Amino acid sequence: MFKIITEDGNARIGKLKTRHGTIETPFFMPVATRAVGKYIGSEDYKKIGVDAIISNSLILSFNPSLEVIKKAGGIHKFMNFNKVIFTDCGGFQVSRDSFSSKQVEKGIYFKNPYDKSNHFITPKRSMEIQQTIKSDVAVSFDDMAPYGSNKKRFEKAVERTHNWAKESLKYHKDKKQLLFGISQGGFHKDLRKKSARDINSLDFDGVAIGGVAIGEPKNEMYLAVKSALPHISKNKPRYVMGVGSPQDIVEMISLGIDCFDSIFPARGARHGTIFTSKGKIALNKGKYKLDLSPLDKECCCYTCKNYSKSYLRHLSKINEPEGMRLKTHHNIHFMMNLIKDIKKAIKKKS
Amino acid sequence: MFKIITEDGNARIGKLKTRHGTIETPFFMPVATRAVGKYIGSEDYKKIGVDAIISNSLILSFNPSLEVIKKAGGIHKFMNFNKVIFTDCGGFQVSRDSFSSKQVEKGIYFKNPYDKSNHFITPKRSMEIQQTIKSDVAVSFDDMAPYGSNKKRFEKAVERTHNWAKESLKYHKDKKQLLFGISQGGFHKDLRKKSARDINSLDFDGVAIGGVAIGEPKNEMYLAVKSALPHISKNKPRYVMGVGSPQDIVEMISLGIDCFDSIFPARGARHGTIFTSKGKIALNKGKYKLDLSPLDKECCCYTCKNYSKSYLRHLSKINEPEGMRLKTHHNIHFMMNLIKDIKKAIKKKS
Repeated sequence: MFKIITEDGNARIGKLKTRHGTIETPFFMPVATRAVGKYIGSEDYKKIGVDAIISNSLILSFNPSLEVIKKAGGIHKFMNFNKVIFTDCGGFQVSRDSFSSKQVEKGIYFKNPYDKSNHFITPKRSMEIQQTIKSDVAVSFDDMAPYGSNKKRFEKAVERTHNWAKESLKYHKDKKQLLFGISQGGFHKDLRKKSARDINSLDFDGVAIGGVAIGEPKNEMYLAVKSALPHISKNKPRYVMGVGSPQDIVEMISLGIDCFDSIFPARGARHGTIFTSKGKIALNKGKYKLDLSPLDKECCCYTCKNYSKSYLRHLSKINEPEGMRLKTHHNIHFMMNLIKDIKKAIKKKS
Repeated sequence: MFKIITEDGNARIGKLKTRHGTIETPFFMPVATRAVGKYIGSEDYKKIGVDAIISNSLILSFNPSLEVIKKAGGIHKFMNFNKVIFTDCGGFQVSRDSFSSKQVEKGIYFKNPYDKSNHFITPKRSMEIQQTIKSDVAVSFDDMAPYGSNKKRFEKAVERTHNWAKESLKYHKDKKQLLFGISQGGFHKDLRKKSARDINSLDFDGVAIGGVAIGEPKNEMYLAVKSALPHISKNKPRYVMGVGSPQDIVEMISLGIDCFDSIFPARGARHGTIFTSKGKIALNKGKYKLDLSPLDKECCCYTCKNYSKSYLRHLSKINEPEGMRLKTHHNIHFMMNLIKDIKKAIKKKS
C-alpha cells in the first residue's frame, strides 16, 4: 500500500496505492472543501496536473447531502475528478464559529450553517459519511483543541482522539478506502509524543499530524511536528494537515513528511500574493501596472503562458472572478512544480 | 468591407472584414465590459469558438486606463483575445447611476466611479479613446435618452446623436478600425425613421440601432427596430445593441439584423437560468438535485460534456464562482450554436 522508493536523509520518495491509482509521495493537495476549489475546479486541477485533492466530508454531508453524492456514485464522479481524493473528517470545523460545535465524550455536536439543523457526529457517523462519499483516503474522527487551550484541554483531546481513532477503525468497513489516523497533542512535546505513539500503534494506513497551522507561531508548529515525527513508523505515510507555505513544505519534506494540504496558495492568490521562482510578489502594487511580463518567467502554467502581470493586476484590482481563477491556477501550479523539483533533488542525492 | 453572400427573405448571411479577420454575419457578441467577461474570460471564449466580443471603451479608459492598454499594444494583446473586438462608446453609461452623468450640447460629463474624478467626453474624445484601445469596430458617440423620457427629450437625443455622429466621423483617423454609427429615436416611429436616415446618410461602415433593451416592453422594442430598419441601406451591416434573448435574436435575424450583443445569456446563467434545446430551465429547482444528466443532452460544450445538473446545481446553490463560470460557458455556447443553426437554415432555404 505504501512503499518507500528513495531516501535522502529523512526525506523520502514513496508510492501510495489507492483505488484511484498510485500516487508518488511527497504530494500537496489543493483544498476542494465543497467538491470544488474556491474559484477553480476539476478542469484546472487536470490542466495543472494535480494528483490529489482534499474535500470536507462533514460539509459535503450538509450540502449537497450524502443522498446527492451517493446518487452520483461518489465524489469522483460527482465532481468529475478521477485522481486521488482525501476527505477530512470534519473535526477541524470546531475551529469555525459558524458551525457552533460542542465536543463531548462520544462525539461533536455541529450546527449545519446552511439550514441551522443540529447534528451529532461520532466516529461511527464520520466513517459512514466518508465511506458514502467514497474518498480514496478517509481520516479518523478527532478532537482538536483550539490554539491557546490549557494543557488539560489538550490532554483531553489526546485521550478522546485516541478513543475515537479506535472507534473509527471499528466502524470503517470499506477495505478499498484507505484510513489514516489523526494524532493531536497541541504544542506540548510530551502530548505530541503520546498521541503519535497511540495512533501509530493502531492499524491505520497512514498517520496524520493534526491540530497545527491553527494560528500558532512557526516555532510551536515545528515543535509539534518534530515531537510527533519520531514516533510514527518510517514505513507509514506521514501527513501534516493544513500546511502550507512553500518554505514549510520544503522544510517538512526534509523532516520526512509525505503529504500536505493547505488553502494557503489559493488564499494568497486571491489576495494578490503570487509565488514565483524569485520569491513572493504582491501583484496589486503599482509597479506592475505596465509590466507586460508573465507572473513568473520560468513558469509554464496556463496563466503565465497567456497573460501579463499588467492584465492580471487589472483583474485583481477590480476583483474579477476570472482573475481569481487565473491567479489561483498559477499558485497551485507553483506548488506542484515545487514538489517536483524537491523530488528531483531527493532522487539526485540519494 | 461588408458583403452579403446569402439571403432568405430579409435574413441574410454576410462577411464583415476587420483587421482581426473576416467574421460571418449574423453574429452575437458576449459582453466583456472590462476586457474580461463576468466569471469567464478569453480562455472560455476561445474554447466556445466566440468570434467577436464587445468591451466598453469609457470604462476601460477609467480602469485600467488608456496608458495600460496602450502599453500592451491594444486590447487584443492586453486580454489575449485575437478575434474581433467591438468597443461601445460609453454613451450607454448614462443609464447607470454610479457614473452620475450629465448630457450637454457638446458631450457628456461622467464621474469615474472608481476614483470619483470627473471627465467630459466629447465625440472627439470618444474617438481618441476607442482608437487607443484599438478595437476592430468602434461606434460613434451618441446621446441616449432613458426609457420613459418625453418626446422632446428623444428629439433632442436624435439631434445631438446626429451632430455627434458627424463629429465622430471627423475625428476618426484610424482607417484600419471600422466605425459604426449609432441611431437613436426612442420609441417613436418618426424619430426612429429620422435618426436611421440621418445616420445611414453618413459615411459609416455599419449602422447600429441603440437605445433599445433599456427597460421597455417587447412591442416597443420591435416598434423601434422595425421603424429604423427600412431606412438603413441593405448593403450595410446592421447592429441592434443590447439584444438579447434567443427568441429576440431569431426574430431579429429574420428582420435582417446582422449583429448583436447582450449580457442576457451570462446574467441568466449566473441566476441559474439555463438555455437548452428544449427551452429554458431553472437549475436551482429541487427537481434537478439528483439529476445526473447534462444541462442539455444535445449540447457539446465543455460544461455539458463534463458535469451533471446535480453537480452544477450544487455549485449554483452555494454561489461558487467555478459554477458561475461553467453555467455562463454553457449559455454563451448555446447562443453561438443557435446562430450557427439559424445560418444553416438561411443557407438551406436560399
